Amino acid sequence: MGHADTLVVIMAGGQGSRFWPLSRAALPKQFLSISEDGESLIQATVRRILPLVGEKSVRVIAKPSLHTLIQEHVPMATIFGEPAAKNTAACIGLAAVYALAESDGADPVLVVLPADHAIKDEVRLREALSEGVERARSADSLVTIGIPPTEPNTGYGYIKRGASVEGKTYKVERFFEKPSLERAEKYLEAGGYSWNSGMFVWRASVILKAFHDYLPQMYDGLMEIQQVLQRGPGAATSGRIDQIFSTFESISIDFGVLEHARNCVVVCADQFGWNDVGSWDQWAQNFEADSDGNLIRGDAIAIDSTDCVIRSSNRLVAAVGLKDIVVIDTGDAVLVVSRDNVQEVRKVVDELKRRKRTELT
Amino acid sequence: MGHADTLVVIMAGGQGSRFWPLSRAALPKQFLSISEDGESLIQATVRRILPLVGEKSVRVIAKPSLHTLIQEHVPMATIFGEPAAKNTAACIGLAAVYALAESDGADPVLVVLPADHAIKDEVRLREALSEGVERARSADSLVTIGIPPTEPNTGYGYIKRGASVEGKTYKVERFFEKPSLERAEKYLEAGGYSWNSGMFVWRASVILKAFHDYLPQMYDGLMEIQQVLQRGPGAATSGRIDQIFSTFESISIDFGVLEHARNCVVVCADQFGWNDVGSWDQWAQNFEADSDGNLIRGDAIAIDSTDCVIRSSNRLVAAVGLKDIVVIDTGDAVLVVSRDNVQEVRKVVDELKRRKRTELT
Repeated sequence: MGHADTLVVIMAGGQGSRFWPLSRAALPKQFLSISEDGESLIQATVRRILPLVGEKSVRVIAKPSLHTLIQEHVPMATIFGEPAAKNTAACIGLAAVYALAESDGADPVLVVLPADHAIKDEVRLREALSEGVERARSADSLVTIGIPPTEPNTGYGYIKRGASVEGKTYKVERFFEKPSLERAEKYLEAGGYSWNSGMFVWRASVILKAFHDYLPQMYDGLMEIQQVLQRGPGAATSGRIDQIFSTFESISIDFGVLEHARNCVVVCADQFGWNDVGSWDQWAQNFEADSDGNLIRGDAIAIDSTDCVIRSSNRLVAAVGLKDIVVIDTGDAVLVVSRDNVQEVRKVVDELKRRKRTELT
Repeated sequence: MGHADTLVVIMAGGQGSRFWPLSRAALPKQFLSISEDGESLIQATVRRILPLVGEKSVRVIAKPSLHTLIQEHVPMATIFGEPAAKNTAACIGLAAVYALAESDGADPVLVVLPADHAIKDEVRLREALSEGVERARSADSLVTIGIPPTEPNTGYGYIKRGASVEGKTYKVERFFEKPSLERAEKYLEAGGYSWNSGMFVWRASVILKAFHDYLPQMYDGLMEIQQVLQRGPGAATSGRIDQIFSTFESISIDFGVLEHARNCVVVCADQFGWNDVGSWDQWAQNFEADSDGNLIRGDAIAIDSTDCVIRSSNRLVAAVGLKDIVVIDTGDAVLVVSRDNVQEVRKVVDELKRRKRTELT
C-alpha cells in the first residue's frame, strides 16, 4: 500500500446525542447505519480508508465501554483505550503517544478521522487524504481537510485559506468557529472558505510539538503517559494513564491547538459529498426525498405534509398537515422536532439525564 | 323522577375517526375517557342524565358489534340494535319506532343525545333538557338544544333563532351548515345564533310525522319495521329489520328533516361548557394547559415548544421546537398533526383502510 509509515486513527468516542432517540450512550451514532445496506458509519469509515493504508494500519480510539462494539463492527482495527470523554485535543494527543509507542522510534504520519461522517465520493476523499499525507510527510505541517461549502451551514467551522502551497494545499489564514447565518452567507459569497471537516493529517511528533507550544500542561501529562508506556504493560499501567488523563482539560483540537498554530495548511478537497451526520436533518440529506419533499423510512403515512423527515422503527407513524417537521420513532421513544431545531435534540438527552431516565439516554 | 313519560336515547354508533389513533373501529371514541378519573364519555353521558329520568328510561342505540362494550360501560341501559351505520336520520327514526313498540300505546318524549360529548356544567345541561322536555310534551315541536357560541368555530352547525316561544325557547328561523371562518365570525358578531349541539327532544309521534313529511320513503320503511315488531320477537324479526334498514338513505337528521320542518324550536341554553370532542384540539380544551400553552399527558418532554398537545400511552415522547402541533402516541401508532389540520385525521383512517391495515383502524 502507498503509505507504509501511515496510521489511521479513527475517533469513535462520541455519543452523537443530536441523533437521539436512535443513538444512545450504549449505541452511539458511529455504530448506526444511515444507508439502506445496513453498513454502520464506523464500518464505512474503515472501508473507505483501507485502499489507502491497509488493515494493519487502522486504529480506533474510544472509551472501554465501546470496545466490544468496535470489535464487532471493525474486527481488523487495533483499539486504543480512551480513558474518558475529554473532547478531541486529549484524544488526539493520547493517540499520538500510543502511535509513537508502537512505532519503535519511527515517527508515523497520522490520519485522524471521525468515525461517524458520511461521504458519497470516496475516491475523491482518498485523493484529498493522500495529498494530506504527502504534505504531512514532506513538511512539519498540521494538515486539515477542507470541504467546499455548498450552503451557508451554521453547524460547521470554516477555514479561510491563504497562500498556495502545492496542489490543492494552501496555508490556513484563519479558522472560524460555527458562524451566524449572516456570516456564513458572507463566507460563501466571498469564496476562499472551506468547511472544517474534522479530518486531519500530521506526523505524531509535529502534533505533539504543537501540544508542547499551545497546551503545555496537557503535553506534560502526555509525556508522563509516554514514560508509563515505555515501562511496558502491567496492571499499574492503565490505572496510571487513567489518572493522568483525568487531569486533562476538555478542549477541542481546533480551539486548543490549531487556531494558535502557525504551521496549519488546508487541503481544499474536491467536493466529495461530505456530511457530518450531525443532525436528523443532515441524515436526511443522504437520501432522495419524494415529490412532496418528504423523506419517509419505515411504516409511515404522510397526508397533506411537505418537507418532513419520518423514520419509524416498529409502529405506524401518521403525519397530517405538517411542514418541516422531523419525526423519529424507536422502540421506546418518539422524537418530534422542527427542522429549525434539530441541533437542539441534545437538550432532550440533557433533560433525560436530569430526570435520571438513563434507560433512554 | 320528573319525567315519567320520557325516554333518553343515546346514539352510540359513531366511530370518531378524527380521534384516531386512540379510537378504533373496535373501540370508538364514546368508550374512551377524556377525564382524569377514567370515566368514559358514554358513562358520563348516562350519569349526567340519570337525575332527570332514572335508570329505567335509558336506551342506547348502536350496531351489534358494540353491544358488549355498551353493557360493560353502562349496564343499566337497555340497548336498541342499529343494523348498520346510516347516519342520524335512520338511527333516530328507528329509535322512535322501537320506543313506541315498548310503550304500549303511549307516545313517549324522546331525549336524543350523542354518546360522545363533553359537558362541564351538568346542572345547566339538565335545566336545558328539562325545558326541552316541557316544550316537547306541551306542543308538537321538534326541540333542538342550542349552545351559546364562544368562538367562530367552523366545525359546528349554527341555528338562528326567531320569535320567542317561552322561557329560553325560540322558534328556529334557520339552520346553517358548518360555515366558513368568515361566516362564523359574522354569526358571532350578529348575535342570535346558537351552536347546534346535536341534542334533540321530541315526542316519538312528532318526529315520525316529520319523517312522513320530509323523508317519506324512510318513513314507509319505518312503518314496515313497526309492523314486524308488532308480530313479536322471533328469528325472522331481526333479519327483516336489517333488510329494511339496509335500504335507508344515509342522511343526517338535520339535513333530512329538521332543515325542512316548520315546527322546530331551539332552547337557547345557558353556557354549560359543551364540547363535541370532535378532534384532538377539542379534547385538549377539556384540560388546563401549562404556562407554555402545552397540554401534556403521559410520559413526555417538551423543549422550546408552545401550544402543543402531547399524549403518550407507553413510551417517551420528546418535542423540540414545536408550535401548534399535536402528538398522540398509542401502543401501535403515533399521530403527529398540526392543530390546523386536526379535522383531517380521518384521512389517516381512510388511507389505512385503503392499504388494508385493518389492525390499525
